[in-house]
Amino acid sequence: MADSVLIINAGSSSLKFSLYREDAKQEFVCSTNGLLEGIGTNKPHLIIKDNKKNILYEKNWIDPKLFQSSARGALFDETMEWLFTHLGNDQIIGIGHRFVHGGSKYSAPAIANEKVYEDLKALTPFVPLHQPGSLSPMRVMLDKRPEIVQVACFDTAFHATMPDYAKRFALPRKYYDDGVRRYGFHGLSYQYIVQYLQETNSPLANGKVIVAHLGNGASVTAIHNGKCIDTSMSFTPLDGLVMGTRTGHIDAAIILYMLQEEKLSADEIQDLIWKKSGLLGVSEVSSDMRDIVEEVNTNGTNAVYAKQALDLFTYRLVGEIGRLVTSLQGFDGLIFTAGIGEHSSTLRFEVCKALEWLGVNIDKEANNSGDLIISKPESKILVQTIPTNEELIMLQEVLKFAKN
Amino acid sequence: MADSVLIINAGSSSLKFSLYREDAKQEFVCSTNGLLEGIGTNKPHLIIKDNKKNILYEKNWIDPKLFQSSARGALFDETMEWLFTHLGNDQIIGIGHRFVHGGSKYSAPAIANEKVYEDLKALTPFVPLHQPGSLSPMRVMLDKRPEIVQVACFDTAFHATMPDYAKRFALPRKYYDDGVRRYGFHGLSYQYIVQYLQETNSPLANGKVIVAHLGNGASVTAIHNGKCIDTSMSFTPLDGLVMGTRTGHIDAAIILYMLQEEKLSADEIQDLIWKKSGLLGVSEVSSDMRDIVEEVNTNGTNAVYAKQALDLFTYRLVGEIGRLVTSLQGFDGLIFTAGIGEHSSTLRFEVCKALEWLGVNIDKEANNSGDLIISKPESKILVQTIPTNEELIMLQEVLKFAKN
Repeated sequence: MADSVLIINAGSSSLKFSLYREDAKQEFVCSTNGLLEGIGTNKPHLIIKDNKKNILYEKNWIDPKLFQSSARGALFDETMEWLFTHLGNDQIIGIGHRFVHGGSKYSAPAIANEKVYEDLKALTPFVPLHQPGSLSPMRVMLDKRPEIVQVACFDTAFHATMPDYAKRFALPRKYYDDGVRRYGFHGLSYQYIVQYLQETNSPLANGKVIVAHLGNGASVTAIHNGKCIDTSMSFTPLDGLVMGTRTGHIDAAIILYMLQEEKLSADEIQDLIWKKSGLLGVSEVSSDMRDIVEEVNTNGTNAVYAKQALDLFTYRLVGEIGRLVTSLQGFDGLIFTAGIGEHSSTLRFEVCKALEWLGVNIDKEANNSGDLIISKPESKILVQTIPTNEELIMLQEVLKFAKN
Repeated sequence: MADSVLIINAGSSSLKFSLYREDAKQEFVCSTNGLLEGIGTNKPHLIIKDNKKNILYEKNWIDPKLFQSSARGALFDETMEWLFTHLGNDQIIGIGHRFVHGGSKYSAPAIANEKVYEDLKALTPFVPLHQPGSLSPMRVMLDKRPEIVQVACFDTAFHATMPDYAKRFALPRKYYDDGVRRYGFHGLSYQYIVQYLQETNSPLANGKVIVAHLGNGASVTAIHNGKCIDTSMSFTPLDGLVMGTRTGHIDAAIILYMLQEEKLSADEIQDLIWKKSGLLGVSEVSSDMRDIVEEVNTNGTNAVYAKQALDLFTYRLVGEIGRLVTSLQGFDGLIFTAGIGEHSSTLRFEVCKALEWLGVNIDKEANNSGDLIISKPESKILVQTIPTNEELIMLQEVLKFAKN
């Protein structure tokens, strides 16, 4: 009989979970992964694998009643029924839920209860695409397994330390008071990076660091002494850098132009700026940086567009780093993480070249061969690739509440 | 009998004009100024003064038919009637019109004709608050005085040299092709600064310079070898820095939030982000930096809010300078111009202190006593205040076409 922790990461149309089981050395090791996809479509699909990638269970639902977004709770419920009946003698001692948004109230993880659930539900208007997916599994487990400790972990929490002038938009004050402010996201990833630096390089952990979390969503954060000073995403995860399908920063007046002159609806604009823009919209090739770089390198038919997308992504990232380094009044380290950050040596090289004037001196060979430290020993700024681990942060948070 | 040039600067509800008369030394000197205010209100008012500020003519209109925005042409026509009948033996050889927007087609001044007029009219959807005011006087003079050369001067033209990655938003490509891109504004002011530097400090004019044009509208531009590299305003003059009543940069998703969740109309949002935000919205004191600084210094009842507005303005300006310096990969000079830039020693001091890490070393006394050069001799970066003169640039452009 072993203790296990369930980590849930739900998106708008999919849900991933991982089960961590305590081993003989009292370490929690991932034993099972699940992916529930196609929520809100006519092809909801579940696949569960063990940690050797053997399929344990697979299911396609065919009942049309389960093809609505509102059926996400029912699909999750069935998924959990399978999991709980296959635990054997193990018990789940805690559940961690990833929430994109904790608002201005939740600057630390919170134990789920009715009050917390209602508070988080009230944030739905801020992130209508994200919050319902995270709320639903919490609701199911509050109802079905009230005895299990559930912990909500927030991507916004890490950024709570930003000063007023970084959080505030120049809107009438009531908007700030009502919660329209810069929150910042990817906080679990930034928290992991800070923890990693504290364990491996404490002078840098206490210094001034720029961390670029570059995945399908992308942001960059200025950290001083382990605390967030400013970040590129703001009220929502739309703002800041160019992303796979999101615009990042655009003139807000463009939205009014689309409404008033192009007669687009708010829903059409939302779809356009969140799902059809970014690398995809500019390259017309893909939302995936690997495809973009491949198109450029093989001189494909859309190579010119792909190069423009790559240059735009790089330019905007470099510019945002410039803004954030200025907030820090200089920096000691530059960290790349998440999919693009960990794997695109092309992008890292271009960014570092553009920052040479600030003392960044990249080691081309180290960068190409996948070393963690990719700056030369004489570089004024340490440049490092760190694979992020958001689940580890969530696991640790759950164990704080569930264990002992 | 002397040659004169008329310079017209029209806003959405007002119109300023200056008459420059050639003197015995063949220099054009301002002889007459006019201000037509309250266009579109029930108090349209005209005042015309000579260059010693003696009132030459004043008029209040009382006919309700002239209280509509559509009456702006009629009011201007009457104003010109007075001017032309009081020229004596002088003749107007050319007219300069300031246009906020020249689109992607006009990267240099253009002689007005029907084709140019229609081209510029077609840009109205891009700047609905600005373009009608500039078009109306051109229309009146095309009809009434077709023999006079009219030159349209564009605030966007200076920025035409920006590379693709600075001009492009990460929207689907058709938006860029349809003209939704970064244009940048205050170009006549930037052009004047470049010309001034060329005449007074040619090494700096050929170097890397950041120019902060800080008036009621505010922007900052990166210039290398006299050419624009990037700028803070983008598709419209809303984007970028905090301004008197405009937000500057905000998350574009906030506009969708206001539409979908707060149920505001597009017109209400437009009014909010252009006219009720910025320094005014945050301070609840004033849109004028002088009032904000006064409120802070005298510890007035809204001093805390005023301080937040001042800090926010400064922080955002410093951050944008950081972004632009990074685009330039370093800089040689920092220029302050326009109302706030020329007159707020407080703001200049705070900005320069925040940039000390980049080699900016401000001379506190020179800054306070209103010297033009306000950096210390040993400062790595030359910091200078230059009073801008957009009318001189327009006058020069008109004379290129009208004289000889």
